[in-house]
Amino acid sequence: MQANQFDKKSEAWSALFSEPMSALVKRYTASVNFDRRLWRADITGSLAHARMLAAQGVLTREDREAIERGLAQITQEIESGAFEWKLDLEDVHLNIEARLVQLVGDAGKRLHTGRSRNDQVATDVRLWLRDEITTIGSLLAELQRALVELAAEHTETILPGFTHLQVAQPVSFGHHLLAYVEMFARDAERMAEVRRRTNRLPLGAAALAGTSYPLDREAVARALGMEGICRNSIDAVSDRDFAIEFTSAAALCMVHVSRLSEELVLWMSQSFGFIDLADRFCTGSSIMPQKKNPDVPELARGKTGRVVGHLMGLLTLMKGQPLAYNKDNQEDKEPLFDTVDTLTDTLRIFVELVPGIRVKPEAMERAAAKGYATATDLADYLVKKGLPFRDAHEAVAHAVKHAIDQGVELGALPLETLQGFHRSIEADVFDVLTLRGSLDARAVAGGTAPAQVFAAIAAHRERLG
Amino acid sequence: MQANQFDKKSEAWSALFSEPMSALVKRYTASVNFDRRLWRADITGSLAHARMLAAQGVLTREDREAIERGLAQITQEIESGAFEWKLDLEDVHLNIEARLVQLVGDAGKRLHTGRSRNDQVATDVRLWLRDEITTIGSLLAELQRALVELAAEHTETILPGFTHLQVAQPVSFGHHLLAYVEMFARDAERMAEVRRRTNRLPLGAAALAGTSYPLDREAVARALGMEGICRNSIDAVSDRDFAIEFTSAAALCMVHVSRLSEELVLWMSQSFGFIDLADRFCTGSSIMPQKKNPDVPELARGKTGRVVGHLMGLLTLMKGQPLAYNKDNQEDKEPLFDTVDTLTDTLRIFVELVPGIRVKPEAMERAAAKGYATATDLADYLVKKGLPFRDAHEAVAHAVKHAIDQGVELGALPLETLQGFHRSIEADVFDVLTLRGSLDARAVAGGTAPAQVFAAIAAHRERLG
Amino acid sequence: MQANQFDKKSEAWSALFSEPMSALVKRYTASVNFDRRLWRADITGSLAHARMLAAQGVLTREDREAIERGLAQITQEIESGAFEWKLDLEDVHLNIEARLVQLVGDAGKRLHTGRSRNDQVATDVRLWLRDEITTIGSLLAELQRALVELAAEHTETILPGFTHLQVAQPVSFGHHLLAYVEMFARDAERMAEVRRRTNRLPLGAAALAGTSYPLDREAVARALGMEGICRNSIDAVSDRDFAIEFTSAAALCMVHVSRLSEELVLWMSQSFGFIDLADRFCTGSSIMPQKKNPDVPELARGKTGRVVGHLMGLLTLMKGQPLAYNKDNQEDKEPLFDTVDTLTDTLRIFVELVPGIRVKPEAMERAAAKGYATATDLADYLVKKGLPFRDAHEAVAHAVKHAIDQGVELGALPLETLQGFHRSIEADVFDVLTLRGSLDARAVAGGTAPAQVFAAIAAHRERLG
Amino acid sequence: MQANQFDKKSEAWSALFSEPMSALVKRYTASVNFDRRLWRADITGSLAHARMLAAQGVLTREDREAIERGLAQITQEIESGAFEWKLDLEDVHLNIEARLVQLVGDAGKRLHTGRSRNDQVATDVRLWLRDEITTIGSLLAELQRALVELAAEHTETILPGFTHLQVAQPVSFGHHLLAYVEMFARDAERMAEVRRRTNRLPLGAAALAGTSYPLDREAVARALGMEGICRNSIDAVSDRDFAIEFTSAAALCMVHVSRLSEELVLWMSQSFGFIDLADRFCTGSSIMPQKKNPDVPELARGKTGRVVGHLMGLLTLMKGQPLAYNKDNQEDKEPLFDTVDTLTDTLRIFVELVPGIRVKPEAMERAAAKGYATATDLADYLVKKGLPFRDAHEAVAHAVKHAIDQGVELGALPLETLQGFHRSIEADVFDVLTLRGSLDARAVAGGTAPAQVFAAIAAHRERLG
Repeated sequence: MQANQFDKKSEAWSALFSEPMSALVKRYTASVNFDRRLWRADITGSLAHARMLAAQGVLTREDREAIERGLAQITQEIESGAFEWKLDLEDVHLNIEARLVQLVGDAGKRLHTGRSRNDQVATDVRLWLRDEITTIGSLLAELQRALVELAAEHTETILPGFTHLQVAQPVSFGHHLLAYVEMFARDAERMAEVRRRTNRLPLGAAALAGTSYPLDREAVARALGMEGICRNSIDAVSDRDFAIEFTSAAALCMVHVSRLSEELVLWMSQSFGFIDLADRFCTGSSIMPQKKNPDVPELARGKTGRVVGHLMGLLTLMKGQPLAYNKDNQEDKEPLFDTVDTLTDTLRIFVELVPGIRVKPEAMERAAAKGYATATDLADYLVKKGLPFRDAHEAVAHAVKHAIDQGVELGALPLETLQGFHRSIEADVFDVLTLRGSLDARAVAGGTAPAQVFAAIAAHRERLG
Repeated sequence: MQANQFDKKSEAWSALFSEPMSALVKRYTASVNFDRRLWRADITGSLAHARMLAAQGVLTREDREAIERGLAQITQEIESGAFEWKLDLEDVHLNIEARLVQLVGDAGKRLHTGRSRNDQVATDVRLWLRDEITTIGSLLAELQRALVELAAEHTETILPGFTHLQVAQPVSFGHHLLAYVEMFARDAERMAEVRRRTNRLPLGAAALAGTSYPLDREAVARALGMEGICRNSIDAVSDRDFAIEFTSAAALCMVHVSRLSEELVLWMSQSFGFIDLADRFCTGSSIMPQKKNPDVPELARGKTGRVVGHLMGLLTLMKGQPLAYNKDNQEDKEPLFDTVDTLTDTLRIFVELVPGIRVKPEAMERAAAKGYATATDLADYLVKKGLPFRDAHEAVAHAVKHAIDQGVELGALPLETLQGFHRSIEADVFDVLTLRGSLDARAVAGGTAPAQVFAAIAAHRERLG
Repeated sequence: MQANQFDKKSEAWSALFSEPMSALVKRYTASVNFDRRLWRADITGSLAHARMLAAQGVLTREDREAIERGLAQITQEIESGAFEWKLDLEDVHLNIEARLVQLVGDAGKRLHTGRSRNDQVATDVRLWLRDEITTIGSLLAELQRALVELAAEHTETILPGFTHLQVAQPVSFGHHLLAYVEMFARDAERMAEVRRRTNRLPLGAAALAGTSYPLDREAVARALGMEGICRNSIDAVSDRDFAIEFTSAAALCMVHVSRLSEELVLWMSQSFGFIDLADRFCTGSSIMPQKKNPDVPELARGKTGRVVGHLMGLLTLMKGQPLAYNKDNQEDKEPLFDTVDTLTDTLRIFVELVPGIRVKPEAMERAAAKGYATATDLADYLVKKGLPFRDAHEAVAHAVKHAIDQGVELGALPLETLQGFHRSIEADVFDVLTLRGSLDARAVAGGTAPAQVFAAIAAHRERLG
Repeated sequence: MQANQFDKKSEAWSALFSEPMSALVKRYTASVNFDRRLWRADITGSLAHARMLAAQGVLTREDREAIERGLAQITQEIESGAFEWKLDLEDVHLNIEARLVQLVGDAGKRLHTGRSRNDQVATDVRLWLRDEITTIGSLLAELQRALVELAAEHTETILPGFTHLQVAQPVSFGHHLLAYVEMFARDAERMAEVRRRTNRLPLGAAALAGTSYPLDREAVARALGMEGICRNSIDAVSDRDFAIEFTSAAALCMVHVSRLSEELVLWMSQSFGFIDLADRFCTGSSIMPQKKNPDVPELARGKTGRVVGHLMGLLTLMKGQPLAYNKDNQEDKEPLFDTVDTLTDTLRIFVELVPGIRVKPEAMERAAAKGYATATDLADYLVKKGLPFRDAHEAVAHAVKHAIDQGVELGALPLETLQGFHRSIEADVFDVLTLRGSLDARAVAGGTAPAQVFAAIAAHRERLG
């Protein structure tokens, strides 16, 4: 065994290079401080590569066993915290490979046969992200379940449905919550699709052109539980679509979280007073002793910007890059890692937060009773009496204007007054002017009538297992 | 028939409103100047709605027939340019509905039964976008075909493969082009997924809560060729995921176009001189008589920013919006429309541009012969002689340094000199130092060896029909 | 006079080009549909250029006069709508120049001496933008004045000040409005700085290298009212900083508008009920007869995304572009134009909207009385009695908790009860527990005490003239 | 002295809160892991606050001295690494305050008098950022100096000036470098403006409304070297304009760096071969022994996306936030910190990198001799013979076409041939067809003639001191 070229990374390409890197350049270009979190994927990928090389006769059985032994020890060292990460060795890949050569000598040097860092890093990121997406998928399912169960308790709780933040029509609070279930269900669907495209194997592309060693790429893909191989070696090393589309799906998911958060913050304000959040999701003030602030939804709303920013960063990064690999791509990792962390933490915390929402049904119903929420029902009533919808709409607008001037709700106007707006109005009109009547009436598929909401809940429970 | 409330839109909610809109406010809030492009989707949706209402007994056959007649006439008027669009009538929906009432009276007023502009606009945009995505899918297939056919002509054309824009290894130019086929294939896959989620029916959600009319939403969805209904009425009117995820897929596609454009611009520069673009994709200079500029790829690269900007605009738009519909959402249309136009035009033009690329194989090969592109082959040669890869890499680095100092390529060094870097080198080394030898050697699946490229072309042709 | 090369633009570089542009390429690369709005700046710049050329002896007096005459006629033609814009002539510059040659022959052909479209377009955009910024500056001043005057009416109107949308401390509504005056004042300052950097002269840079004609660039700059010349010709034609920094300042201004809009929407919701907006800034619903929606602030909030998107588009556009001019840059115009339009319209409409805000002081004060808004005053009271602030904070937290349990405000607790939380509390405590007492107490510079607000209003009035 | 409420932060608002924070919530909401870098600004601000409180008689001299002593010790502890940061204590402010109370008891508890974390954090960030901007300003000056000195060595080095990456006209390489000096000069100007707006004092705004203590805010501003106080308390705690405009200026600066980087990467490619970068800014390949990759400019180009992303994140963060402080704002710090780090590191490294650029003048000049770079000179020659510019342009286009067909440069065409394109051409034409002649001719102010470049260098040296 010759000397270990990794002992000082600054000499790894020393034959060609006449000048060492400055400390600042080293820090600027090194990635080990953030990419070390890929270590397990790196080892998993190396094991699959080594076993395939041995099966193909490129490595001897002894080499393969030495590599397996060395990587097992490195796994232990990293798990126990004993592994020494060196900035000099630039990235997670060289750190692990250098240690392997220390441990097992030439066999370690043979591991990189038919492989380049370009395809290695792409493989590692994909392996790692694939598993993170699995976790995110589970969290999205849990969050949906939490929302469905809260909805199930509030199928008949009346919330003022808003459009333009103005009282529009009464809705079931459960129905309102299920709107978020739809959003998170779409997020889960998107994540599954992204996972499928992420979970393909670049290894074998080498630097960019493929390799002259007789690799069995399909076998490695199967061993790693991947969907298949990346079909073109140049694309394999330069493609970062998976990072962009994952971050895009994450940004959209965070937009959904931000909408829910906005509503939680509004609902918890004293002016709305619709809900209270459990203390553990709130903080107080250093100056105002009475404060209980909904910190968690506020932060989640704020963190949406962070993930949107990462998406922007990644798109800017890749824009206009010529093929194949460029060092710019190293900048894909931090935004990707932070997106995973932010989304995962946020979902995890909302899984806890949702069941801790204390609903105040009376306040919701009181608010729904303001704002002429049943005016549409009066218009529909007139349509059933034969008016074209547009004429009914016009007649009710006059009635609402009169009620506002009187400072009362529609249902408080006397029958004769109502009849002044249209002669076809009869005593049964007061049934349609109640909140509950309005709710029950909207029994179309997907509507807010409790029967529909019950059905939707049943379907979601079935779907979510 | 009563007076037509639409005659002056400013009076459409006059009963409640005491003051007319100012001209500026009208212009600020109106959307008819851009959303009129949805007119055909609006009419298609209205027809399906009217027919279902009639089938459900909500409309009479006479009313339905009157509506069909009126909408047929409006279709003719719009197609012929005779239709008068009015800013006073705010948007495409009210313009069409007002004209319908003019034409067929009360039947027209009944069309809006069980419907709100909130679910109507969501339906229109989805119908329109769904069809645009179909067109985009076709263009992506055409572009892939164009690239595959150009690749087929250049399977054996040698291009210097770059990493870090430094000469790395020789690759087949056809192989290089197929990397873009992979990208556009992924784009097409994403577009198909977005289409599926876009192609769902909001109609029936009414303002936000559903409606009290006995609508058959599934029937409408079937009549419109949609995948199914939006399952929750609140989500149906407030969801703009489809616009965001379409724009995201479009932005990623434009990033791919920008990478190809960057390369075309580089390759056409005098310093590279690898290709020439057909004159019709270039322009000259008002001052420099000799100029022929690659305007089209430059503009396409620039337009990437435009689409990325639209994506950012849409994410910002939706962030933190409480449910259900808010007027903010009207701002979804212009970025969406412009994204569709930009992407469609760009793909269309690249479908034309790609076959017009004039390749200069000699210049490519000349460039590949510089830069020690076969150094990896020499390392692999030493590995086959028994050296661990890392040691071979080191030995070759010394050889390259020597060659640089001598100002020659590796293959021009005498055998004895090469043997000075490792004693195992023999006369057969010169075979591996040729570009063609290097190319042929990379015969791993997905590699650049012509045999692999042929196989890939065959597979793409099969897939693309 | 020879033939006019502009008669068919497709032949303008015909000598070198063997193939005409296709219609799609023409549409894709032409800019006349949007850059014609620069026509007046283009003519202004050409006049200054022609006069300088004549003064320098490069043009004869006759040529200069012919050019002046021709450009005067073109001005009339464009103003009257008689000018025929041709897509074939690509952009505003060639359209005007071609017409000039038609009108005055060879003199027109001499106008372009020492000039290139690269420096011409940069000059036009800067001249145009400079004037638009002046308008924006005026609108920002008007908007500040409108806010100051509304504030002046509500110096003593009590609003619940929120942090985390939770009631924090009572503030003067006038004081709250003045916070926006600060924001718009900063916007105006930034705009003035951007204007200064925009208002410099690229003309004379020609294509990129300067020109061999003896131009007097400083004289042209003076004639055009500019700050000076762009000092480096390569920078002059490739710099788009001014577009980016203008759009950035505009985006930040829109963020301020979006915050005000968010508050207006909240305040107008039935749950808050703090204000009403004039009808002309609102619209109704096609289905719900009772609705009056705050469309204008909602749209303004939404349009923030649009401008942010344009900023992102422009940054993406310029990222990684090599010097000097590239065609990508043509993509700077539409986002820039739309940013100007959006910001100008939005400011104009808010200048009208602010005086039309109907404030409901009782509702504001009622809301301030909830939420223990004077708890900090009680803590401060205890500090004045000698407690360290942190201990006072703790004692008051206990008092608030007791009051919440009792369902009363702090001021409604009996003295003995209060004394249970700290023995130093005396009867004068009830003075500090009033909203008005709390307001008056915050008399630090910049605080919410009416005296401070009065002083701030006076200072703003002085500053705004 | 009572118990220290900070001993366990989870009990800091315990009186009101019945439930402790979960570990995940704590991690999600705590900021100490990243905001501890503000520690020195926090202590500086606290000292100024304490001294003013004492001067105003709010604190006793003994308390002030105790606070000074405590903060001095904390400074030592942090500098020596002995300080124990606790996640339980949430942020840098509470960590320091809690330790102060441990050290000096009740005096420490009195420090927070008349202050809230809302104005404290705003003050800390502004103090910190102001100093970072000072550093950035120095680095921008150093970078300009480095570019000017390199330019001074290459005033007469001929580079092919490109537009559309096509050879346009010969330019002085020094002139080209000075284009970047203009960009970085504008960056420095913007940074100075941002600094001025950043360097204002929020302290005294307390939670949002000001305070009832007789603070002397102007005195604190003076003591801290600030421009003045934030004039409105609500704005003071909710304003994050300074973070956004700083990040915007940083993004634009990174765009400039990315343009320079793009050129360095191009120039160092084998096809251009215009420069070489010092080894210490490059790395090799793990697989290709011959590679020397321009990692630093590539990474810098990639990091542009990162900063643009942070800008996007911050704009999204603030969009639509109601006043005053919301927890979302905590998300301003990480993007701001990372923007400062990225920009500072990048500038620092370019200050080193620029002098290490090895220029290859022969390769540059060789490239300039291709591509008919003097065609404009020929057109100008004809104009001087009396042709209108447009006709001269046309004639030269024909000449270029002929030369391309012959495969020679213009200057290699025989005189008779040239005369075939216009009869006025004489033997002196060959002078204007040389690169050097072309260069010297462009002697307009700001042009590329060496005399102009010398003058520009002198002016820059004067300006940069």
